Amino acid sequence: MKVITKDGTEDIWALWYEDGIVKFIDQRVLPDKFEFFDAKDYNEVAFAIKDMVVRGAPAIGAAGALGMAQAYEQKKDMAKVAAVLRATRPTAHDLFFGISLIEKAIASSEDPVKKANSFVQDLVDRCRMIGEHGAKLIKNGAHLLTHCNAGALATVDYGTALAPMRVAHRAGKEIFVFVDETRPRLQGAKLTAWELKQEGISHALIADNAAGHFLSRGEVDLVITGADRITANGDFANKIGTFEKAVVAKACHVPFYVAAPISTFDPKTKDGRGIPIEERSEDEVLLVGGKTIAPKGTRARNPAFDVTPHSYVTGFVTEVGIFKPSELGKLEWMRRDCTPRHPTPAKRSRTGGPKRGR
Amino acid sequence: MKVITKDGTEDIWALWYEDGIVKFIDQRVLPDKFEFFDAKDYNEVAFAIKDMVVRGAPAIGAAGALGMAQAYEQKKDMAKVAAVLRATRPTAHDLFFGISLIEKAIASSEDPVKKANSFVQDLVDRCRMIGEHGAKLIKNGAHLLTHCNAGALATVDYGTALAPMRVAHRAGKEIFVFVDETRPRLQGAKLTAWELKQEGISHALIADNAAGHFLSRGEVDLVITGADRITANGDFANKIGTFEKAVVAKACHVPFYVAAPISTFDPKTKDGRGIPIEERSEDEVLLVGGKTIAPKGTRARNPAFDVTPHSYVTGFVTEVGIFKPSELGKLEWMRRDCTPRHPTPAKRSRTGGPKRGR
Repeated sequence: MKVITKDGTEDIWALWYEDGIVKFIDQRVLPDKFEFFDAKDYNEVAFAIKDMVVRGAPAIGAAGALGMAQAYEQKKDMAKVAAVLRATRPTAHDLFFGISLIEKAIASSEDPVKKANSFVQDLVDRCRMIGEHGAKLIKNGAHLLTHCNAGALATVDYGTALAPMRVAHRAGKEIFVFVDETRPRLQGAKLTAWELKQEGISHALIADNAAGHFLSRGEVDLVITGADRITANGDFANKIGTFEKAVVAKACHVPFYVAAPISTFDPKTKDGRGIPIEERSEDEVLLVGGKTIAPKGTRARNPAFDVTPHSYVTGFVTEVGIFKPSELGKLEWMRRDCTPRHPTPAKRSRTGGPKRGR
Repeated sequence: MKVITKDGTEDIWALWYEDGIVKFIDQRVLPDKFEFFDAKDYNEVAFAIKDMVVRGAPAIGAAGALGMAQAYEQKKDMAKVAAVLRATRPTAHDLFFGISLIEKAIASSEDPVKKANSFVQDLVDRCRMIGEHGAKLIKNGAHLLTHCNAGALATVDYGTALAPMRVAHRAGKEIFVFVDETRPRLQGAKLTAWELKQEGISHALIADNAAGHFLSRGEVDLVITGADRITANGDFANKIGTFEKAVVAKACHVPFYVAAPISTFDPKTKDGRGIPIEERSEDEVLLVGGKTIAPKGTRARNPAFDVTPHSYVTGFVTEVGIFKPSELGKLEWMRRDCTPRHPTPAKRSRTGGPKRGR
């Protein structure tokens, strides 16, 4: 969805539904090219998820919901559609949630398109609120560090870790962001650097190895990352390398914040020991841009995520406020079961949102 | 120099002087190809240093000494030769030491070739002794982690961080090494993985980001890195990312050792604050294998080294023994001026050294 903001710049969503097409920013070709991928039916939506046209748990959830709504309009066999979409990423919680949401809407005779669109708008509103709360942590002149891409591309719009930076920047604060390149898939170099460039936020790319140097030299005031899953005690899983940054930030007395919607919290899992860690293809480590970086026959280990204990977290930035790990147990939404995981926050108008220039 | 070891395998030095030629393993083409670079005169030696045919401070020092010796045999203008060689890396301490050593030999009518060769042999002997001492830390079945390349390629033979692994492996211990790929220049992926492969030591390449994950899961028993410079209090500079690994190792209660010859100790510099950190070309971060990884126009920061405070160091593995940071002040060789920086250790026969199969 293209939104023309107050100052005339375009704010483009990572995906949206328009004229019977699920439209995606094609994240496979970023940052070299800016192209859209048009999914004309659910098979093309499934392809977009599988081939990583879209990535990031909330954005994939949105793709699932919009793909279901599109298929309903096209009078497809919905049981088959749901099965095909679910099979694209068999471990993605948000994807399953988005698909089930539309199944339930159909069962209760709600309009699936309206339901999917309001689900996506709700995701965006929550990210904007994360930005509003998180921006209070960012002083004028602040230097930040982030890891991976927890931006608009991963969450439809605003992002989680990047939302506070967007809101702070739009409010006129001068900020600077160190962007971890985030090996092995380089989402920092490819996606976060691209998003910050669109926003006009000053930044520099660094090798993941260099974060500690800048933290130790007092060149970073604040670290903000996203999270894939946050357990009852505040331990959380996120992109591989997050744990290292959190440990080093603490050693250097730099505050470390985790930005995530409350749907990311999983009160049913007691602590980080309950989070399984996926190991992905060795080739992600062994090849960069299709070229091998190591001797022929070299083996690699490639854990996709790591777990950071809550003791390294200064606070969680959510759409309903900022909380210390020790406060999580007192929160009503952390005590109950996490289904449905998308309760509605107070709505605010979109016009205060940050721009994405082109 | 090719040495046929007891079991018939070849042990090849990173560089040596033979039949009027300074011969190098060409590190520019590793790991894709194994080739030698023949430097027929001092200009070609200078080129080899500048173009990174050879890298690693001790190996560059050896190149300086051998280049001087070669030029003396070829009856060149030695003042000019020394100036050309010194200009290749104007901040390299070991290079200057190697060149000056031969200047002094000439001034005192010693044989420059003999002097250069014994200097290189001495380097190798010291590394072997680092290996002998360090191997005592490595139990059968141990899993180790190393960063960058502190191997034979950087030190003529044996290496510093890799020497204990070679000696332990050769003694029949089953070991496994996690190899940090070491962005931005990927020395771990290109050189350390290659060396371990030659040695037949089990290993896996990991993204630098993944080290913390394996440390936190109890999958690493011991971290060993090299050092570029160690100050009076035990703070040390090494390849960017070393600081992060040391901090995370401590948080995970994993011993962290620094392997280095005593020539790397700089008692004249009180602590890590006295070590200037070189920032290298942005392109090292922005390009991998000649291909850009970030949006056009992205800026990067690229500190080549970082400083790790002594509080993260379990011990220093040297050719004269293993020392805690707190013990450094009591050592005779740490109290005096560090010139000359190459005192002679007790000699041992080469035959106990590790192999490098081809």
